[in-house]
Amino acid sequence: MTTLPLTRLAGRIRSGEIASLEATEAYLDRIERLDGRVKSYITVAAESARESARHADEELKRGRILGPLHGVPIALKDNIDTAGMRTTVGSAFFVECVPQRDAEAARRLREAGAVLLGKLTMHEFAYGATSQNPHYGACRNPWNLERIPGGSSGGSGAAVGAGLCAAALGTDTGGSVRIPAALNGVSGLRPTTGRVSNRGVFPITWTFDTVGPLARSVEDAGLVLSVLAGHDPEDPLSIDRPVDDLLASVEQGLDGLQIGVARNFFFDGVDADVADRVREAAEVLARHGAAVDEVELPGAERADETTTRMIWAEAYAIHRRRLEEQPEVFGEDVRRRLELGKEVSGSDYAEYRERARQWRRSLELLFRDLDLILTPSTETTAPRADDSEMIATTRRLTRLTYAWTLSGLPALSVPCGFDAAGLPVGLQLAAGAFQEATLVRAGAAYQRETDWHLREPLLATEAEQVSVR
Amino acid sequence: MTTLPLTRLAGRIRSGEIASLEATEAYLDRIERLDGRVKSYITVAAESARESARHADEELKRGRILGPLHGVPIALKDNIDTAGMRTTVGSAFFVECVPQRDAEAARRLREAGAVLLGKLTMHEFAYGATSQNPHYGACRNPWNLERIPGGSSGGSGAAVGAGLCAAALGTDTGGSVRIPAALNGVSGLRPTTGRVSNRGVFPITWTFDTVGPLARSVEDAGLVLSVLAGHDPEDPLSIDRPVDDLLASVEQGLDGLQIGVARNFFFDGVDADVADRVREAAEVLARHGAAVDEVELPGAERADETTTRMIWAEAYAIHRRRLEEQPEVFGEDVRRRLELGKEVSGSDYAEYRERARQWRRSLELLFRDLDLILTPSTETTAPRADDSEMIATTRRLTRLTYAWTLSGLPALSVPCGFDAAGLPVGLQLAAGAFQEATLVRAGAAYQRETDWHLREPLLATEAEQVSVR
Repeated sequence: MTTLPLTRLAGRIRSGEIASLEATEAYLDRIERLDGRVKSYITVAAESARESARHADEELKRGRILGPLHGVPIALKDNIDTAGMRTTVGSAFFVECVPQRDAEAARRLREAGAVLLGKLTMHEFAYGATSQNPHYGACRNPWNLERIPGGSSGGSGAAVGAGLCAAALGTDTGGSVRIPAALNGVSGLRPTTGRVSNRGVFPITWTFDTVGPLARSVEDAGLVLSVLAGHDPEDPLSIDRPVDDLLASVEQGLDGLQIGVARNFFFDGVDADVADRVREAAEVLARHGAAVDEVELPGAERADETTTRMIWAEAYAIHRRRLEEQPEVFGEDVRRRLELGKEVSGSDYAEYRERARQWRRSLELLFRDLDLILTPSTETTAPRADDSEMIATTRRLTRLTYAWTLSGLPALSVPCGFDAAGLPVGLQLAAGAFQEATLVRAGAAYQRETDWHLREPLLATEAEQVSVR
Repeated sequence: MTTLPLTRLAGRIRSGEIASLEATEAYLDRIERLDGRVKSYITVAAESARESARHADEELKRGRILGPLHGVPIALKDNIDTAGMRTTVGSAFFVECVPQRDAEAARRLREAGAVLLGKLTMHEFAYGATSQNPHYGACRNPWNLERIPGGSSGGSGAAVGAGLCAAALGTDTGGSVRIPAALNGVSGLRPTTGRVSNRGVFPITWTFDTVGPLARSVEDAGLVLSVLAGHDPEDPLSIDRPVDDLLASVEQGLDGLQIGVARNFFFDGVDADVADRVREAAEVLARHGAAVDEVELPGAERADETTTRMIWAEAYAIHRRRLEEQPEVFGEDVRRRLELGKEVSGSDYAEYRERARQWRRSLELLFRDLDLILTPSTETTAPRADDSEMIATTRRLTRLTYAWTLSGLPALSVPCGFDAAGLPVGLQLAAGAFQEATLVRAGAAYQRETDWHLREPLLATEAEQVSVR
């Protein structure tokens, strides 16, 4: 049952066919057996998960459905506060930090009935894309344990990829949901900035951060996002705007969708296997009803550079005091990357902000005629852990995600095949502001025509066999 | 007729009692006689003004009213583009610059029927509050020609104060409408940022700039603002939100208005005469129906410092290339002030932006219970021109206006008396986002009970006598 899509698992729990406790135990069992190698969890909250599961089962017996995630085991990136459950932010500063209060995203998961399995490994302070955490363990890719899972939500990607939770929350500043989704063969959705509350989430920046779901299918991710989305007066960047039903158009298919395949920048220097898989995916979309054409994105390269330097400046501002007072508590690579923020001047930053506005505006003009823009999610599949200098690898892995970050617009990563080494390839679809439903609709339609998202890593299959014995 | 309030002049022109050409000639005549001493105009567009006036008069004969400013002579700060009319931005870089297209604010004035008299003196690039412009003339205060008119819209304040136009447009980044309004004894309104389009206005910053009216009464300023306000898709910061009728509540008076007098920061180090006049004004408001109490504004001092340094960084970014390539074309004081922008780091700037958000939020919470916050507009009356080192004087004159700039909220300066030297004192009222109508309502009610705004400088009175002879 740990390989069931979340939407189906949720249905079977609601119908009483599978008990939440049974599903929870199955995941805990898999974590026990596999996670010593994957290292996707920092904290497994077995006892409180069982308690929530029992509660869900009891409520169901009384005829009460807690919400759309009733009894479904979900895990959270460890920078999202969870009341009574340690939240380390992947940092040695917060080894013993147990929040009093749930982040808004965690609160919404619980309110929807989810069972919180535990907290997932991440790059230290979410400030890197390798997730080789010096304090809590070097998370690995379930498709090949010598490879990194990407990041910064590496644990979220690896745990969903290895079937160690039904879905996971990540956070995406520069690509931290989309990159691990791509590298671990799962679906990950970065919503429009401001769509999901950041209250109780440890920041990397004040501008670009957002919570987003990773799951086995786009429909699953859409369901989780529909629980997370909504206005929160306690988050100053939260946008007060009604949330559409994200799954309402799932059955509509691709007919009538206008999709632009990026002509410039987004295929430059991309691995041949990755480019091939993504272009094949574009053909699948065209074959099943979408109108697919090329689109020029002037300014994409500059958008990438602008994002790089804005993130540097903001992350440095957020960590400056800690860096000055206790530099030794940081891992060496994160400390070095943070120090890059000193290079950015205030006038540069002010100008970058203006560029960001112009970039968003130019994309909004494109999205008057287009529903989606298609690119690869990353220019490479999962790099080797022993060959992944953090700053260079982060730069490389974020090159195709940063431009969307700068715009604040939503983007989705969807599995679209494998490279010659058997590693997953991700397709990135971006849409106009608040058009998450269109992303879910197109992603779900693609997944009805393909089975890439259903493939499982050997590691997971082995575990099933062990389990059967 | 040059001393008539705009609203009455407009009425008499519309009724045919006064011809627009007659009013225009009266202003041109006064400019001719007085402005050699005041130096409030960089460009007097006599011929095109006469042409517009004749057109207005002809249209009226055909029974057509062009709009609420039909035939009314108005002048504009010289950083607002006017098609076919030189726009220098007070800079030697733009001595010969004649725009092809009106700024949106100028376009709206013309559409409303206004006669554009010419372009007003300003601090070079609007980057200072003395308006002692080295390239186009040192504008002086009509109440005392040895004093500065404030700035950066110094010409706008001086021209309205001396009766050289029926109203003027200024622009306010850090206080550039409110300060000259206060120092020249006129009414000036800074709208909510985003309320009036900045398209075609030469920028100081990308964050704080806004066009705003200066006029002889608050009601006049409200009428001009009602013409300027509205969404402009060509300005990325323009807010798409319906504009209330700004004059609709003018007759409502002060009953039921909750006014908070700033307890901290805004009276510290303020000249005794200024503080006395402002407190007397608060008593007038209380006596005529407002509920007046003190209010604590925690963080005001930090807001002031934050604004200072954000403006430095942004102005430097905007002028960097010109500074590097042709530093000698700048006046020395503006060049030195621009160079201060190098001191601000990107991480500082990022943090300031976060502070700005928090400051606005804290004010929005206060404005749940309050309609208005009352402070002096400036801590001093008009300084002497020979004792006004630009950077220090600008710092001093902006100290009470910057905090509102940072919030983006609207604020009004209203004349509230004179100091011992006979120089005007200004009262500043601030309101919640888009509550310009409340500012106009309270200011108009105050002006029904007082006559400070009707007083005229001796210079203007002399001119009338000369005129009668």
